[in-house]
Amino acid sequence: MTQRILVLPGDGIGPEITRQARRVLEACREAGLDIDIEEAPVGGAEIDRSGVPLAPETLEKAKASDAILLGAVGGPKWDAMPDIANRPEKGLLALRKELNLFGNLRPALLYPQLVEASSLKPEVVSGLDIMIVRELTGGIYFGQPRGRETREDGTRYGYNTYVYDEHEIRRIGRVAFEMAQKRNKKLCSVDKANVLEVTILWRDIMNELAPEYPDVELSHMYVDNAAMQLVRAPKQFDVIVTGNMFGDILSDAAAMLTGSIGMLPSASLNESGQGMFEPCHGSAPDIAGQGLANPLATILSVAMMLRYSLDAPALADRIERAVGAVLDQNLRTADIAYEGTRQVTTEEMGDAVVAAF
Amino acid sequence: MTQRILVLPGDGIGPEITRQARRVLEACREAGLDIDIEEAPVGGAEIDRSGVPLAPETLEKAKASDAILLGAVGGPKWDAMPDIANRPEKGLLALRKELNLFGNLRPALLYPQLVEASSLKPEVVSGLDIMIVRELTGGIYFGQPRGRETREDGTRYGYNTYVYDEHEIRRIGRVAFEMAQKRNKKLCSVDKANVLEVTILWRDIMNELAPEYPDVELSHMYVDNAAMQLVRAPKQFDVIVTGNMFGDILSDAAAMLTGSIGMLPSASLNESGQGMFEPCHGSAPDIAGQGLANPLATILSVAMMLRYSLDAPALADRIERAVGAVLDQNLRTADIAYEGTRQVTTEEMGDAVVAAF
Ligand SMILES: CC(C)[C@H](C(=O)O)[C@@H](O)C(=O)O
Ligand SMILES: CC(C)[C@H](C(=O)O)[C@@H](O)C(=O)O
Repeated sequence: MTQRILVLPGDGIGPEITRQARRVLEACREAGLDIDIEEAPVGGAEIDRSGVPLAPETLEKAKASDAILLGAVGGPKWDAMPDIANRPEKGLLALRKELNLFGNLRPALLYPQLVEASSLKPEVVSGLDIMIVRELTGGIYFGQPRGRETREDGTRYGYNTYVYDEHEIRRIGRVAFEMAQKRNKKLCSVDKANVLEVTILWRDIMNELAPEYPDVELSHMYVDNAAMQLVRAPKQFDVIVTGNMFGDILSDAAAMLTGSIGMLPSASLNESGQGMFEPCHGSAPDIAGQGLANPLATILSVAMMLRYSLDAPALADRIERAVGAVLDQNLRTADIAYEGTRQVTTEEMGDAVVAAF
Repeated sequence: MTQRILVLPGDGIGPEITRQARRVLEACREAGLDIDIEEAPVGGAEIDRSGVPLAPETLEKAKASDAILLGAVGGPKWDAMPDIANRPEKGLLALRKELNLFGNLRPALLYPQLVEASSLKPEVVSGLDIMIVRELTGGIYFGQPRGRETREDGTRYGYNTYVYDEHEIRRIGRVAFEMAQKRNKKLCSVDKANVLEVTILWRDIMNELAPEYPDVELSHMYVDNAAMQLVRAPKQFDVIVTGNMFGDILSDAAAMLTGSIGMLPSASLNESGQGMFEPCHGSAPDIAGQGLANPLATILSVAMMLRYSLDAPALADRIERAVGAVLDQNLRTADIAYEGTRQVTTEEMGDAVVAAF
């Protein structure tokens, strides 16, 4: 049966990086993968076209697809928009919520060829391989009530609600425990249970799940300590599970430890295995359209798509090996180039991966 | 007029580090500072004594004092306490709130003698000198409503409220702008204004304040990006201002960049200049009572006390110079020791600072 892929290039460097990733998808099709690829605008590009960040027909296409490949959304052009409900990011948040993509997997993996790119000492990061499991459709990102208002006396105030129920926590907990079972069997749950009631429940539920996964060693860490430990000794972690907001912060910090956020893919999955796949980095409007962007994170997101949504792990392996091969050939986009390597454009990097595939 | 200092040793390594800091305070008294020093238990130590983390009479003493020196609170012994309202941390939070200590200053400063201790490459961190200004009495730490409850259908849920009004934001904003004026005139305000309404207000108020400080260059950064930039290129920052929760996370990450969190003091101030001073590190129960703890962060907290609450900047300078001198003498507690330095105990470090004062 033909599987349907929706490509959403988005803003900034989104179009140029998804273009290269799409070539890799097409190479998979030539290799026998039965897929149908369609494309649609999202984020700022869609605001410019129709006034909203996610068109209803695009949402319908997304729901009907087996997997989505997203570039990136947002940029200074739309940052000044006063109405938060109509900014590029809202398109992304709506996709996550409407498709129920609660399970966000964000690997922080250091490629041995790129140890130099990290701002950390080689001995601190070499061999780094962390998987951050972030809850993506709940918590303070979506909690009600929320808003900005003015009190009787004229004082403006703003508020958001950080809320989780046990079902939301349990299902992301299961994703994380199962991930740990497939890896090094260590799971660290990150919360702020010494201050926030909602994260006391988080900790309780993780503890309740633990007996079902006796082979996994569960630990708990406060979020401030986790931020420190990621800087101090990141290799102590295997799988980290946390809520939407803490996951946003910690996964970006963890990604940056590798020095090459341009290399890191991510997956956002729902309970039926449908998923959205995107690079961890943003839309980088400052370098858009110059051939400087690194397409490897998006290409590796295609590999995650093949593994997690399209049930084609062998092709996923082939893509990952091809990426390893181009790094071995010393090819580097600007973000990961240093003396002794050969700097290539976004498109040349795509060429090289397709050739090595 | 005699100024009153309340010393709250707290838990874990708290007693041994405040003991050394108190010796430095006493050296200041001998040098002419007119102070009265009193001590009281807080946190777990007070729970063990009276059942609550902050005794009413201690709170009264704190209110009547000009400055408070706090060691650290908390430990595994009290972590299992089901009632969050009665954990050691609540003593600390109550002191902050009751004394209205909204302005938390957390420097992340790399001592040139300790460049080796950082997990980051020397060129990335040498010369690092950031001041994080964290709002300390509002935001999600104190927002109402909050709690854990059970729905009709038996589902447990938990919730907290992230709320700020314009007055709270404005007063911490002023502290940060003024701090930037005294430093390198760059202020970065950290929020998540692309997702959270409360932080849109935060950003608005910072922008409204900016014209009053034309010599300060104000920028804004999303919290996930700030976490990345701290790892990638921390020297881009001068002063960072942010809310309670983001400040908790970012200040710990920033402190760890220096590799020697045992060196970093902090100040928490109210509008009348009364303050609580404490090391950035925690109670480290695993090394308590072994003479391994580094007293320098607490000693440097005394220097902040002299500068910000007791109007004795010359004595503050003397303490900071004495700390520099003991580092130059190559003396190191275990946390910052490496080959070629001389490892000393907590007390020997105190001896050395008093001698160099
Ligand atoms: C763009 C933004 C809404 C988004 C988030 O905060 O989740 C991004 O930072 C991410 O991590 O995917
Ligand atoms: C102990 C805890 C309540 C506290 C906080 O979260 O504020 C601590 O982490 C700090 O940063 O001072």
